[in-house]
Amino acid sequence: MTVQHFGRQSLQFLRQPILLSYASVVGKKEAAGPLADEFDLVSRDTSFGQKSWERAESHMQKLCYDLALKKAHLTMEELDGVFTGDLLNQCVGSSFSLRDQNVPTFGLYGACSTMAEGLLLGAMAVSGGFCRRVMAMTSSHFASSERQYRFPLGYGGQRTPTAQWTVTGAGAVILGGEGRGLRLTHGTIGTIVDGGIKDANNMGAAMAPAAVATLDAHFRDLNLQPGDYDMIVTGDLGKLGYELVLELMGRKGYDLSHNYADCGMLIYDLKKQDVHCGGSGCGCSAVTLCGHLLRQMKQGKWKSLLFCGTGALLSPLSVQQGLSIPAVCHAVSIKREEER
Amino acid sequence: MTVQHFGRQSLQFLRQPILLSYASVVGKKEAAGPLADEFDLVSRDTSFGQKSWERAESHMQKLCYDLALKKAHLTMEELDGVFTGDLLNQCVGSSFSLRDQNVPTFGLYGACSTMAEGLLLGAMAVSGGFCRRVMAMTSSHFASSERQYRFPLGYGGQRTPTAQWTVTGAGAVILGGEGRGLRLTHGTIGTIVDGGIKDANNMGAAMAPAAVATLDAHFRDLNLQPGDYDMIVTGDLGKLGYELVLELMGRKGYDLSHNYADCGMLIYDLKKQDVHCGGSGCGCSAVTLCGHLLRQMKQGKWKSLLFCGTGALLSPLSVQQGLSIPAVCHAVSIKREEER
Repeated sequence: MTVQHFGRQSLQFLRQPILLSYASVVGKKEAAGPLADEFDLVSRDTSFGQKSWERAESHMQKLCYDLALKKAHLTMEELDGVFTGDLLNQCVGSSFSLRDQNVPTFGLYGACSTMAEGLLLGAMAVSGGFCRRVMAMTSSHFASSERQYRFPLGYGGQRTPTAQWTVTGAGAVILGGEGRGLRLTHGTIGTIVDGGIKDANNMGAAMAPAAVATLDAHFRDLNLQPGDYDMIVTGDLGKLGYELVLELMGRKGYDLSHNYADCGMLIYDLKKQDVHCGGSGCGCSAVTLCGHLLRQMKQGKWKSLLFCGTGALLSPLSVQQGLSIPAVCHAVSIKREEER
Repeated sequence: MTVQHFGRQSLQFLRQPILLSYASVVGKKEAAGPLADEFDLVSRDTSFGQKSWERAESHMQKLCYDLALKKAHLTMEELDGVFTGDLLNQCVGSSFSLRDQNVPTFGLYGACSTMAEGLLLGAMAVSGGFCRRVMAMTSSHFASSERQYRFPLGYGGQRTPTAQWTVTGAGAVILGGEGRGLRLTHGTIGTIVDGGIKDANNMGAAMAPAAVATLDAHFRDLNLQPGDYDMIVTGDLGKLGYELVLELMGRKGYDLSHNYADCGMLIYDLKKQDVHCGGSGCGCSAVTLCGHLLRQMKQGKWKSLLFCGTGALLSPLSVQQGLSIPAVCHAVSIKREEER
């Protein structure tokens, strides 16, 4: 067996998993943003017809995996593994969406980095021959997140300038070993980085050091430069975190000014949608990837994408106890197959 | 690449990861039980010298991974990945124990199945050549769990007869591709199974159907029988769940009466320690594996072990909303290398 590990944190897949299909489901605020036309399914009813916000989130996942399976002409029985997690306590969004599906399932907790973490682990499973086809999936919901991490919505709490808006959305990608399409070529496993930020309303600043650490490791381990990608995106750093990454990477000698964007800034209109620093949540990078980025790649806009999921690993209790916020960033490289 | 997936849920590792070392750390109640002499480190102070129960849990993980590394003559720099998670909201036990370690980390959420889930994913990473050496780690703490899932300890709530006692303990296993020792040969990825139990104080009954589903899949997928193992253990079903597994497996035609045990019954003296149905928590199966089971294997008592981690995927909120309890069970086979 050839070692596929490079440097401290990175992988190069000798057998590159194919993105067989991907799907995205969002709520009404996301459908009012600049990416509106790129999502597969939009619900004007953010309760998705369910009795609680948590059930709404699970239901959103169900809609999403049904769509992804349908697009790939597959059934759940044809998947050998699902890699999934979400922001809710004990990841109930995912456990409840899959409890009647009889599909082998790995539960993940990577906060808002979950889509990238799932893609990375799913790619290892497929590339190593352990699973023939897998799904990476995640979700977040504005209302279920708000009441868990902050206040009940009815309380009407004021948001600080650095706050972000949790995306209501679910995204899913199906990876397989055979077929044609976009390919997953490299990955970088994040380390947990704690920059000392203690403000739970400033996730961008808390996560930026983790993004910088992973980007730096990715380029160093694999001997690459930012210019080797047509597009580099982080998950949900928002405006402040985005600017911090630009600056901190600049200090390390990397110029990201030409081809770097953040999903939290792409998904909403920051001037018109009252989202302060932008979008956040597991769903933010998941639906921006599955709705916008992969679609653009498929249509030929970019040949290569470095997708960096960013997650803040806090809990309400850790913040109440005065602890700072650890963060993680997992990255995967996605390439378009050349026309022959 | 040869497919290593068998049947619906199972794997056979062509390149079998070696268990390079393992370590266990427990609190005082565990040290008063029948396995007392088998743990590596015991703390009579269940706060482990820390200011909060959550910090105590993180600190316990630190003590545990330091021990596991030391036993394998490795440093954290020599690990390519850590697969870890715990029961606390947002898995802060793990995130905080690793935030200063600069090690590639995958966050998991499998509730009390986490040790088995981590071993399964870690084995895929090593066997596939994606990581040279990895660690699977988890923990639980009686006091941090009680206040999160049930009541603050000071409230003095009465426990029901089916209740179990969350183990205070952390376990860690280091897997590598090279070397001699116990080997990880097969695995079965759990599906999420919901048997309809709604009583959060009856975890054994909630998890038993998941254990049965995984055991059944394991034997069927890999064409094995219970008698092919010297010992089969489940994670933390306790007395009631253990009896349910015996009965339900019997109905499927499998006789487990000769070589089946449950970690939740092994770790405490059920008659003397006032733990009702037995132990539970991520730490229960982790320390019983790392403290007792692997030690017994190494000493020659058993040649083959089927280790089934069982997890209840509930949250306090899902129970409050009247939902039943989904559960999962992941299994790995561990074999002793024959003497030559």
